Amino acid sequence: MEPVTAFAPATVSNVGCGFDVLGFALHEPGDAVTAAFAGGAGVRIDDIVGDDGRLPRDARKNTAGVAAQTLLDAVGDRRGVALTIRKGLPLSSGLGGSAASAVAAAFAVNALVGAGASLETLMACAFEGERIGAGSAHGDNIAPAVYGGFVLVRVPNPPDVVRLPVPAGLTAVVVHPDLEIETARARALLGSEVPLGDAIRQWANLGALVDALHRGDFDLLARAIEDTIAEPRRAPLVPGLAAIKRAAIDAGALGSGLSGSGPSLFALCRGIETARRVARAMTAAIVEHIGGRAPDVYVSPIAPTGARILSPAGPKGPAVQV
Amino acid sequence: MEPVTAFAPATVSNVGCGFDVLGFALHEPGDAVTAAFAGGAGVRIDDIVGDDGRLPRDARKNTAGVAAQTLLDAVGDRRGVALTIRKGLPLSSGLGGSAASAVAAAFAVNALVGAGASLETLMACAFEGERIGAGSAHGDNIAPAVYGGFVLVRVPNPPDVVRLPVPAGLTAVVVHPDLEIETARARALLGSEVPLGDAIRQWANLGALVDALHRGDFDLLARAIEDTIAEPRRAPLVPGLAAIKRAAIDAGALGSGLSGSGPSLFALCRGIETARRVARAMTAAIVEHIGGRAPDVYVSPIAPTGARILSPAGPKGPAVQV
Repeated sequence: MEPVTAFAPATVSNVGCGFDVLGFALHEPGDAVTAAFAGGAGVRIDDIVGDDGRLPRDARKNTAGVAAQTLLDAVGDRRGVALTIRKGLPLSSGLGGSAASAVAAAFAVNALVGAGASLETLMACAFEGERIGAGSAHGDNIAPAVYGGFVLVRVPNPPDVVRLPVPAGLTAVVVHPDLEIETARARALLGSEVPLGDAIRQWANLGALVDALHRGDFDLLARAIEDTIAEPRRAPLVPGLAAIKRAAIDAGALGSGLSGSGPSLFALCRGIETARRVARAMTAAIVEHIGGRAPDVYVSPIAPTGARILSPAGPKGPAVQV
Repeated sequence: MEPVTAFAPATVSNVGCGFDVLGFALHEPGDAVTAAFAGGAGVRIDDIVGDDGRLPRDARKNTAGVAAQTLLDAVGDRRGVALTIRKGLPLSSGLGGSAASAVAAAFAVNALVGAGASLETLMACAFEGERIGAGSAHGDNIAPAVYGGFVLVRVPNPPDVVRLPVPAGLTAVVVHPDLEIETARARALLGSEVPLGDAIRQWANLGALVDALHRGDFDLLARAIEDTIAEPRRAPLVPGLAAIKRAAIDAGALGSGLSGSGPSLFALCRGIETARRVARAMTAAIVEHIGGRAPDVYVSPIAPTGARILSPAGPKGPAVQV
């Protein structure tokens, strides 16, 4: 059996008012994981490329390793599997890198051993990978990396995922400034309680956002996307956050905010032309307010599909039940 | 100009996970308000029928009176108007009685003076009536009483109301036990802060509920309707609340909960036959756990329209811009 390589894309989680529950997939960049049969039992990590040596090589502490082992356990396969992880996503960027590695690993091992696991099972395995490997998991990066598109995670595990419609023309901009934010630090800023009034505004907005996606109502989407909970408390982590968001809106974005816990920012736009203009405006604002190396910029329609098998090509992959 | 009588229906607000933002209209019962020109300037209340003398006769302190005066002020009409209010809704029942009176008054006065105000303006006037007359307002009773159907109030004032689709067959049961709960007391139980985790579950559920209404996905609706915020804290106000809800679910309801701040309970059901069975089961559980006089029971499809002009009939009413 030849090795199997799977790819899982970058994802934007939180998405304004959808803190911890909403996410969407980009076409690229993403992480790729190659799985091959190896001697012994269980999962080992042969190599990680692109992390500057910072991610754990111990499979029991690595999101991809845990996801792979969880899948093998779930399907009762005791063969040894070696993983090679190619990080296309920068660490601590807010682009769902730990989720992408976990999802790609689950997809690759699923195809390697011919388990034919459902997307729901693959999501549960990747969720476990992120929970152990990253210390916490919320599902709003995992779910879009698995299913693609724009998703709402009603319950992360066992997964109850709602695949939302994506209006024609809805286009994402993601810019990654030269900053790192640890998810744990960003989460600590939130505290354990929130004002009831802020929470009510958040769920009113989220309900309206879901309606807007169903109707293709871009005006309502623009009004509803505001985050009253997380972003106001996390704003100090990203210098010039308000100015960068303002630049996006002034250039025509429907809405903008932190991707995950940042430092990347996303914007949602109507059409690719507007998205390119928004990307330029956000880049300029980031250069002014954050500096450092030039930000990475991605402009893409929301990707309708998530993870996929890159090789071997052909009918074998993606070997999942949809 | 002959007097104008308008009717506004009972409404169920909160609706599980939609605390303060979600509501739907019943066909009946409701309140009726008659408006007639009178001497002097401003609004006076001639009579209130069906309140056992408990509602304020001072128009400046009455939800209907304030709503009527706010509309006259908004359209710059200084004529004197006398109101007669017929309460079809019991007081402090959780059926949106103060909203119904305010909405009916706004509709009646709008038609009487020929103002042709928009539904948005009528909602804003009724909102002001409830705010002054009832001490606080949230819009999730006002909006369905104005627009009908199933609505989400993104912002109550100035109103940003999302009219949600109602799947064919979705049927409401409302039972009003022999209890009174003051809205202010029910609200005090909530406190001013809520656990972030509970709030996240609430907005995940609300987003899923909106999706379920769009898709007509009754299974998702049933999973998503759970209220993690208000009802757990208000449960002590209604003896046997958990048992009454359990009876509804066991009889086939998709979900059940307090209507507004109670004591009325609602259930949502698929089809009228199930709804009738659920109504009987809830009634039996209420007799067992609450006692008192037999509960009032309403079984009705969600009403697609809200307030309307009852008389004079004909092209003059409803004299509103839709």
